[in-house]
Amino acid sequence: MSSAKAEKTRRDRITVKSIRDVAENISKKIDKLSKPEVVFPVRSLGNVRYSPKKGYFEIGKGKSVRSLSVNTAKTFAQTLKMMSLSKELVETNDFATKRDAYYQSKNWNEASFDEQSESDTVMDDIEAMFSVHGVSREQLRYVPDEHGGAVAGDLVVFDTDLETGKTEKIDCTRFGSGAYSIPSLVEHLTFETKAKFVLCVETGGMFQRLQSHKFWKKARCILISMAGVPTRATRRFVRRLSDQCKLPVYAFVDCDPYGISNIYRTLKVGSGNAAHINQFFCVPQARFLGVTPQDIIDYKLPTHPLKEVDIKRAKDALKNDPFFRHYKPWSDAIQQLLKMGVRAEQQSLARWGLNYVIEEYLPNKLKNPAKFLP
Amino acid sequence: MSSAKAEKTRRDRITVKSIRDVAENISKKIDKLSKPEVVFPVRSLGNVRYSPKKGYFEIGKGKSVRSLSVNTAKTFAQTLKMMSLSKELVETNDFATKRDAYYQSKNWNEASFDEQSESDTVMDDIEAMFSVHGVSREQLRYVPDEHGGAVAGDLVVFDTDLETGKTEKIDCTRFGSGAYSIPSLVEHLTFETKAKFVLCVETGGMFQRLQSHKFWKKARCILISMAGVPTRATRRFVRRLSDQCKLPVYAFVDCDPYGISNIYRTLKVGSGNAAHINQFFCVPQARFLGVTPQDIIDYKLPTHPLKEVDIKRAKDALKNDPFFRHYKPWSDAIQQLLKMGVRAEQQSLARWGLNYVIEEYLPNKLKNPAKFLP
Repeated sequence: MSSAKAEKTRRDRITVKSIRDVAENISKKIDKLSKPEVVFPVRSLGNVRYSPKKGYFEIGKGKSVRSLSVNTAKTFAQTLKMMSLSKELVETNDFATKRDAYYQSKNWNEASFDEQSESDTVMDDIEAMFSVHGVSREQLRYVPDEHGGAVAGDLVVFDTDLETGKTEKIDCTRFGSGAYSIPSLVEHLTFETKAKFVLCVETGGMFQRLQSHKFWKKARCILISMAGVPTRATRRFVRRLSDQCKLPVYAFVDCDPYGISNIYRTLKVGSGNAAHINQFFCVPQARFLGVTPQDIIDYKLPTHPLKEVDIKRAKDALKNDPFFRHYKPWSDAIQQLLKMGVRAEQQSLARWGLNYVIEEYLPNKLKNPAKFLP
Repeated sequence: MSSAKAEKTRRDRITVKSIRDVAENISKKIDKLSKPEVVFPVRSLGNVRYSPKKGYFEIGKGKSVRSLSVNTAKTFAQTLKMMSLSKELVETNDFATKRDAYYQSKNWNEASFDEQSESDTVMDDIEAMFSVHGVSREQLRYVPDEHGGAVAGDLVVFDTDLETGKTEKIDCTRFGSGAYSIPSLVEHLTFETKAKFVLCVETGGMFQRLQSHKFWKKARCILISMAGVPTRATRRFVRRLSDQCKLPVYAFVDCDPYGISNIYRTLKVGSGNAAHINQFFCVPQARFLGVTPQDIIDYKLPTHPLKEVDIKRAKDALKNDPFFRHYKPWSDAIQQLLKMGVRAEQQSLARWGLNYVIEEYLPNKLKNPAKFLP
């Protein structure tokens, strides 16, 4: 029960140690009368590669160094203040959004930010800097302003009360037609479940159908509503849940290049632009349940013609995306979709009855997870 | 405990009776060999007025009639099929999104829709038609695809299991740092609470702060995360909660024309474009806690200059919006904002400390709800 608390304490210790290490290096340099510096991983696409073994876009070893100079003095000070605020947040057991941090800086005198875009950049720098130490932005207690997804099913979440430290037990089978809304910060959560898999659903409408009809009970699973491209909190939640409970993750999205190459690919391998954070956020164990191009044929689904943007996105995936290029089944599936020239929404299964998805489609597919696209 | 179930049964009976009434009128006309017709309220702005007594934009008495003719035959048939599907949904205790309904129509032979835009229009018609009977789209079991907001605090929600009919009890004090995610359909929910008010919060970041620090416990309230302009499900949830438990509703949003005239005004009085549904969705008992233009001065908040779109929106509210024109305190406040030429985000209170909002701002404001803007 107190494992949630222990886990939190352990992670906080790592965070504070990393902040101290960076700060001590700077302090030592100054003591030696040499120029202090901070080191970031190079974030350009040239320093990113797809690692089939790890299963995600990985940042390379390229580093860039920012030394203290007349030009960098203000940013340098701001970076240190931001690190110091992070340490304070861990110590007071609190957190801050990007905006909170920006407004807090108004007390930093000459190190105060003039625009939020400036403080966002410094925060991105810090995130990259600490990612090298295996510490995420969320562990630094900087949380996103956006909502997490919704969860229902065979899962108990253990959380810790911020003020009393007491463990709170959240039973996700007990929400009626509602659901558990994932908090911004999920690092400290622990889980207990007898579920056999996690099912990540693209649309709110489909999630509501599966939840209201308690599909999770029949299929012994945990339902996650992604509502489009999943937020950071949702991705991290699924990742930690799957890692900790050793559960396979299946994605159930529209059969179109957006569902495949934006939603599914982001969930599974992350993005090339933010490769330094993929180690925390992507879910390499995810697999693609459907809707596949072959499902459109097998289930005689009503379709829409592919739009120009769909065709562009699909061709781009085939040509430039190392993930899709790595897996032949994916290249084949995308080529098949382009040849068919149509797309299908997950809700198009309603053509055979509103609950056909629950009674036929999902049970059929789940008989053969080995056949899911990688 | 079974009041949730009884309430659901009562509402379903009204829905089915309304569908029957409309259908019987059509059937009688046909029996008399005269042209059957359906009647809708006119939805143009000319048929909308602000009712200070009811507290929302209200639809007028203007009606338009659609008779069966060669030109309307297909739409007429689709309207009846959509009504019939609704009756079936109530009887099988199910629901459908707009998309579900579109795909279901693929079984309607010649009445099948070619495009989703067509089925959306027919659904809008039906919604307007039944709004005259006091029956909402949600009572017809057509649910939005979008997510609801998040809820935390001193509230127990009673829901009914769709399949077993058992009552489920959801305690919103027990979500740790997470929250209760509002389902698409809230008509059947009932509530129990000792809270003194409902606090609707604009940003996810501020909601997370108030929730993680259990502000609802200190202030004895219920927190709602609107995440921008509240969805239909969120507005209806707040309305039903406030009506049933006789709770005042306070809005806590950014001090800018978007927060005031889009978020707050939509929550409180609805919109002129969809006046026929305001009777269900708006929350006329809502009041504006802050952030007010005067708060910017009193709390020395960091600001941003008003953008052109802000100025346009504010001037438009002063000139054309019957709600803001009706209340002098609002005209004064908006004029003050224009004169100051700046806006402030609710998170700008972090300038005085991350938890200043919990320790000072909200307790100060809550001493004097009578002073809240109307």
